[in-house]
Amino acid sequence: MSEVLEKGRAAKKASFQLNGKTTAEKNEALARISEQLIIDQAEILAENSKDLEHGKQKGLSDSVLDRIMLNEKRIKDMSEAIQQLIKLEDPVGEILETIHKENGLIIESKRVPIGVIGMIYEARPNVTIDAATLAVKTGNAIILRGSSSAQYSNYVLTKTIHRALAKTNLPIDAVQSIENTNRESAKELFHLNDYLDVLIPRGGKSLIDTVVKEASVPVIETGAGNCHLFIDESAKLEMAVRISINGKTQRPSVCNAIESILVHENWFNQYGEELVAALTEKGVEIIGDEKVCQKLPSTKPASEEDWYTEFLALTVSIKVVSNVDEAIEHINKYGTRHSEAIITENQEHANSFLTFVDAAAVYHNASTRFTDGFEFGFGAEIGISTQKLHARGPMGLKALTSNKYFIRGEGQVRG
Amino acid sequence: MSEVLEKGRAAKKASFQLNGKTTAEKNEALARISEQLIIDQAEILAENSKDLEHGKQKGLSDSVLDRIMLNEKRIKDMSEAIQQLIKLEDPVGEILETIHKENGLIIESKRVPIGVIGMIYEARPNVTIDAATLAVKTGNAIILRGSSSAQYSNYVLTKTIHRALAKTNLPIDAVQSIENTNRESAKELFHLNDYLDVLIPRGGKSLIDTVVKEASVPVIETGAGNCHLFIDESAKLEMAVRISINGKTQRPSVCNAIESILVHENWFNQYGEELVAALTEKGVEIIGDEKVCQKLPSTKPASEEDWYTEFLALTVSIKVVSNVDEAIEHINKYGTRHSEAIITENQEHANSFLTFVDAAAVYHNASTRFTDGFEFGFGAEIGISTQKLHARGPMGLKALTSNKYFIRGEGQVRG
Repeated sequence: MSEVLEKGRAAKKASFQLNGKTTAEKNEALARISEQLIIDQAEILAENSKDLEHGKQKGLSDSVLDRIMLNEKRIKDMSEAIQQLIKLEDPVGEILETIHKENGLIIESKRVPIGVIGMIYEARPNVTIDAATLAVKTGNAIILRGSSSAQYSNYVLTKTIHRALAKTNLPIDAVQSIENTNRESAKELFHLNDYLDVLIPRGGKSLIDTVVKEASVPVIETGAGNCHLFIDESAKLEMAVRISINGKTQRPSVCNAIESILVHENWFNQYGEELVAALTEKGVEIIGDEKVCQKLPSTKPASEEDWYTEFLALTVSIKVVSNVDEAIEHINKYGTRHSEAIITENQEHANSFLTFVDAAAVYHNASTRFTDGFEFGFGAEIGISTQKLHARGPMGLKALTSNKYFIRGEGQVRG
Repeated sequence: MSEVLEKGRAAKKASFQLNGKTTAEKNEALARISEQLIIDQAEILAENSKDLEHGKQKGLSDSVLDRIMLNEKRIKDMSEAIQQLIKLEDPVGEILETIHKENGLIIESKRVPIGVIGMIYEARPNVTIDAATLAVKTGNAIILRGSSSAQYSNYVLTKTIHRALAKTNLPIDAVQSIENTNRESAKELFHLNDYLDVLIPRGGKSLIDTVVKEASVPVIETGAGNCHLFIDESAKLEMAVRISINGKTQRPSVCNAIESILVHENWFNQYGEELVAALTEKGVEIIGDEKVCQKLPSTKPASEEDWYTEFLALTVSIKVVSNVDEAIEHINKYGTRHSEAIITENQEHANSFLTFVDAAAVYHNASTRFTDGFEFGFGAEIGISTQKLHARGPMGLKALTSNKYFIRGEGQVRG
């Protein structure tokens, strides 16, 4: 039997046992994991340094090496994040609906764990702890499949989790890590329908696209954010500039950053140069449509492909539009259904934009950077869903639950 | 451009427009469709008779021909079902959550249409009307892909819907029907990720399995029900027999019918013959494990394959088990996560069964036949989901909605 199949079976079995565990038992397990990270610190750092060594030999970029790197501070942060997770309310067991039937049947819909979650991710060993502890909190078993560039780190972190779980009532098999990081193990996960209830990819666009395209198990699509800001005719200059700068430059590498600014032509004629100057001053490279390039000859022209592009860098595309409808149409064509904002003093235009733009989060007079599980007050974030089924937008603990109908009777049959 | 691609685009465009339609506008459209069915009755019956004629020539079975067949009564029923649908509450617009942030941001999560729904189904022209009207009620566009054996009926019914929509504010393109019913058009739908938000298969196991296995668009898996009844040691004879008969014989062809009965060995030794006699009297064919065959030599032995089988007929498999844990383990291995029941007077056993059996609906002392959107009081049913994401169990109108975050500010940026 292959590793994936074997671990899939074990995870499924563990997931059945997890259905009977109390919040106290799950929190106890989290406390032990939080502790064990500190106990095992020296071993974790030693293994992590092997990944870093291999990464340097392979010529990985500094930014990738930084993602792989663990140190005392980062381990302490992981340990403390688990303490925060313990404090969050357990969504499992919540009664979603109670139906009393005339025939005496009582139908209760309750929140239950999903079952077995698969997580496929790139070079970030912190995801191993993050995903495993979110799964434990919600009573799910999890199968982790990280990348080869963090394999020593992922392996030792899984060992730490297992040592911690061995001290508790929870089955060790609840957390499985696939050691074989070749393409075959990913493919097996894509089609592990008998044991996997959902597969969540975390990483770049190409990883997510591959999973969506190939997997026959249910997938939650996360991440890609080609987010727009539309500056309407009546937008206040200061607000428009402030939100443009915040959306583009506060953290350019994240999915809720702004990639494209659409500007009403009257506003652009009046304030376009000021907006561009403010962005340029912050080091933002600007590419624009014909009107932008005409007015500001230093601007590079944007290609058709650019309007689809999530730059994740200090680059922004700017397009001049005639009205809110043109902005909406552009966003619904080129956007990725993540976060979209309008700056306007016209309430009607705001309502139209919020209603007709198709995205997980739509903003009036605020920065798209707020689309985030912590900012929304969920206390945790599994990812940001850009699909419309199951969960949309920032996903907190509830996104890792399903529902189940409990029906109690005294012998009722259907007539 | 292919038919599927063209209609996919048109449906997507219509779905954007539908976001702005009110409950009154959608109900008005439903009323027009209800009317138009009666107006177009003669034309519909004439086209339907072509399908029946072709079906007879192709040698379709009487039961399939009966599913294809429309008559005045059936058209009247469809028309009246729409009147009932009009009366149901519109889930779109419901505020699911309001978050007031300290910085003054107001975050509202609202129910919105999913967007574009694909429905792929077998020889039942009534699904054309059913699915289209559920979509209209929830503000979704829909792409219908029925089977060639009902193509004339589906075509004329779509024409009826379009005639009705033409009298309203709703875009005609909201309802699309794929006329090309070959394998290629299905394959195209499976991968129409740019235009389709969800694909729902309605039909037999082989159709559903194909869609789940092949589609890269999100799928809601419905239907298959290998449902079990576990008769525990303390079960009352009369109740156990009544529920067995109801579960197996009241409507054997449906997904919530009982396919397998697990019996505690002590109960079986005392009452097994009575149970079997009662089932046999109702015309049920029984296949059993070794213990059943030993005690009742007239019983045919069940193969390993039989425990996985949804008979959808007057056949039931019976297995003797030692305790509730063995019953749970058997169900979690062979079941399809649909509906599972325990008959017991032992509350602890009941709780254990309900907690650890992994299914959309779990019953204590009641028939599995109640798993149904109408029985649960939803007023409509899109299908019964046996997966755990998005919707589980009977799906009402809410299952055809998603959520969207509306965020309103006065220029807030992230610090």
